Amino acid sequence: MGAPLEGIRVLDVSRVLAGPFCSMLLGDMGADVVKVERIGRGDDSRSVGEKVGGESTYFMVMNRNKRGVTVDFRNPEGIELLKRLACEADVLVENFRAGTLEEMGLGWETLHKLNPRLILASISGFGQSGPYVDYAAFDMIIQAMSGMMDMTGEPDRPPVTTGTFLVDYATGLYTAFGILGALRARDQTGQGQRVDMALLDTAFSFLVTAIPDWLLLHKKMARRGNRDRYCAPTNLFTSKDGRYVFVAAATDGLFPRLARVIGREDMLTDPRYSTNVERMKRIEETEKILGDWVAERTADEVIELVRAAGLPCAKVATIDEVVEDPQLKHREMLVEIDHPAAGKFPMHGLNVHFSDTKEEIRRPAPLLGQHNKEIYGEWLGMTDEELARLRGKGVI
Amino acid sequence: MGAPLEGIRVLDVSRVLAGPFCSMLLGDMGADVVKVERIGRGDDSRSVGEKVGGESTYFMVMNRNKRGVTVDFRNPEGIELLKRLACEADVLVENFRAGTLEEMGLGWETLHKLNPRLILASISGFGQSGPYVDYAAFDMIIQAMSGMMDMTGEPDRPPVTTGTFLVDYATGLYTAFGILGALRARDQTGQGQRVDMALLDTAFSFLVTAIPDWLLLHKKMARRGNRDRYCAPTNLFTSKDGRYVFVAAATDGLFPRLARVIGREDMLTDPRYSTNVERMKRIEETEKILGDWVAERTADEVIELVRAAGLPCAKVATIDEVVEDPQLKHREMLVEIDHPAAGKFPMHGLNVHFSDTKEEIRRPAPLLGQHNKEIYGEWLGMTDEELARLRGKGVI
Repeated sequence: MGAPLEGIRVLDVSRVLAGPFCSMLLGDMGADVVKVERIGRGDDSRSVGEKVGGESTYFMVMNRNKRGVTVDFRNPEGIELLKRLACEADVLVENFRAGTLEEMGLGWETLHKLNPRLILASISGFGQSGPYVDYAAFDMIIQAMSGMMDMTGEPDRPPVTTGTFLVDYATGLYTAFGILGALRARDQTGQGQRVDMALLDTAFSFLVTAIPDWLLLHKKMARRGNRDRYCAPTNLFTSKDGRYVFVAAATDGLFPRLARVIGREDMLTDPRYSTNVERMKRIEETEKILGDWVAERTADEVIELVRAAGLPCAKVATIDEVVEDPQLKHREMLVEIDHPAAGKFPMHGLNVHFSDTKEEIRRPAPLLGQHNKEIYGEWLGMTDEELARLRGKGVI
Repeated sequence: MGAPLEGIRVLDVSRVLAGPFCSMLLGDMGADVVKVERIGRGDDSRSVGEKVGGESTYFMVMNRNKRGVTVDFRNPEGIELLKRLACEADVLVENFRAGTLEEMGLGWETLHKLNPRLILASISGFGQSGPYVDYAAFDMIIQAMSGMMDMTGEPDRPPVTTGTFLVDYATGLYTAFGILGALRARDQTGQGQRVDMALLDTAFSFLVTAIPDWLLLHKKMARRGNRDRYCAPTNLFTSKDGRYVFVAAATDGLFPRLARVIGREDMLTDPRYSTNVERMKRIEETEKILGDWVAERTADEVIELVRAAGLPCAKVATIDEVVEDPQLKHREMLVEIDHPAAGKFPMHGLNVHFSDTKEEIRRPAPLLGQHNKEIYGEWLGMTDEELARLRGKGVI
């Protein structure tokens, strides 16, 4: 069975993270994704972060399964090329600032008239309209504004953002989901539509109970480090060999198993610890009992004992351990792909595991303008002479 | 235009977070979602967290746009009912431990034979096979094992997990995306398939560059608090009125604007600060200059000045501020829904903003077994007598 998005053409003029993550997901599912970059520097992510073989690891991770073309976005002939490409596409993904597409002469009305079947997915910090429409934004700003950041970190320390740009990636996911919804709607109506996605909306949706808990009960989801909000003991502890170990055995259903593992069956009949309600009242003491037990053992000993009781437990793994993880290997989640400049390039694999449909990583990220001849030929039927002319004029 | 998933029937036997978040997304997009809960206690999330009108806010946030039925999962007649429901469904969502569905007599082979068009989406910590298949897992354990947690937090402090269960929600998103892919594949082949999703895969995909940067360059993404990894100054600062303010103006393109705002144009010609490379070498001094400037002003003053220069900037908002955010209101991201027990219940709105397709929140989360009569009647054509018999025997 072919990949689900086989035959779907995605024109991707987005840059950096949320947009490219979205179009990568579509490419992984079989879409023919063409990444359009401005001539000269290309996507900003080409110049961010570490380099291998002269190419940015950021760019290479985000842009697998795409072919790449260049165009001068400021040249009228370049805009004409984009229009012609949009006429051949099913989906256009963009994450310019709101209003930029319109200024380029590629607003939704224009695109929809040119190609009524086209789906336009727009990703921005705050959406295409509203009081914040002109504010600059990126992942960490949105974590701050959404309330997400205020909930993350230790109680007596400043809030912290997540270690990688989770709001960008999750917005890419929401957008990919929205695009598949719009494709399904198009199957019925024959018409494309605009999908308007905002990073702030994404982060807000992850607050979940914080919203009603505040508005109805005036309870705030305060920063709580690694403690569970409702059950004790669930926290991070330090082992004899200096490793962080996460142990969770907090519900009344699971706690008896933990008590037995740590040789403290007495806690099960001790009214101070026998129920979660009482343990939450004495959270420091409860955690100290477990913490002392962990501190007397190596991380591996702790994990072996706690897991044998069927309880959730884990070391805080570092990247050198994660890339050796046997489960991730079993799932084929670590893949290597041949890149013309970087050589064997390792990255995460395919997240959706279908039983029948064949998904695959078919190609590495493109070099800047690598597929100009191929795409302008395939999609637009351009001759070598036309391409040479456009190249000569600096349009592509 | 109707919602994209109108006419798609989703049978959801999943519990707590990742599964219910996934089926909520499908319901928001118009699917007819039936949540199946065990008789008696129902979904565990009914007894977690805060209560309003006797109902859990967790449950109510995760289960809008679903109807609810009960069944005894341990009763052979209950299993028969599930089989009959699965015959009427397009999608089955489950997040039991791997192997449980098979033990219940509802393994993929059985389901596929009963209803070849059915798509089975299975969510688990580690997937349906492999060395960790029997380990217990939940969001925080996966954050620890995946490497995500090791990257989140302050450099000289223990790692921290995110304030809400982002890996659960993102896995719900990946699964919803996978289900729409499988529906699209089914349009071609007429056949359903199994979609096997794992929390660990989700978190691993968010490591992005950490994977090649370690394997190819032996560079680790260390915890860095709120500092950007590549540009300075970008960090959290404290204002005169004691608020945390995030300011980002770190690229060589943007830094001149910041230097002018803080009255330090001299930095633009000072070789110690004029380029990002040099600022990164003197990150403490660079941040101190900006931090001192922020400390002399209120958060609102800082934001007004920095934003006027077109730079990204934000207060770390607390939930009481977030629910008043004018942009979120403009996007209709805060909605209120009438719940029979909790009354007016506020929660996040619809994330995918379609220009034509009508998405809506049609109903609140179900009470336990609220739609038994309706669903067993509509989907299975059961009479009141049959229902009474099953109720009498404790099957539903």
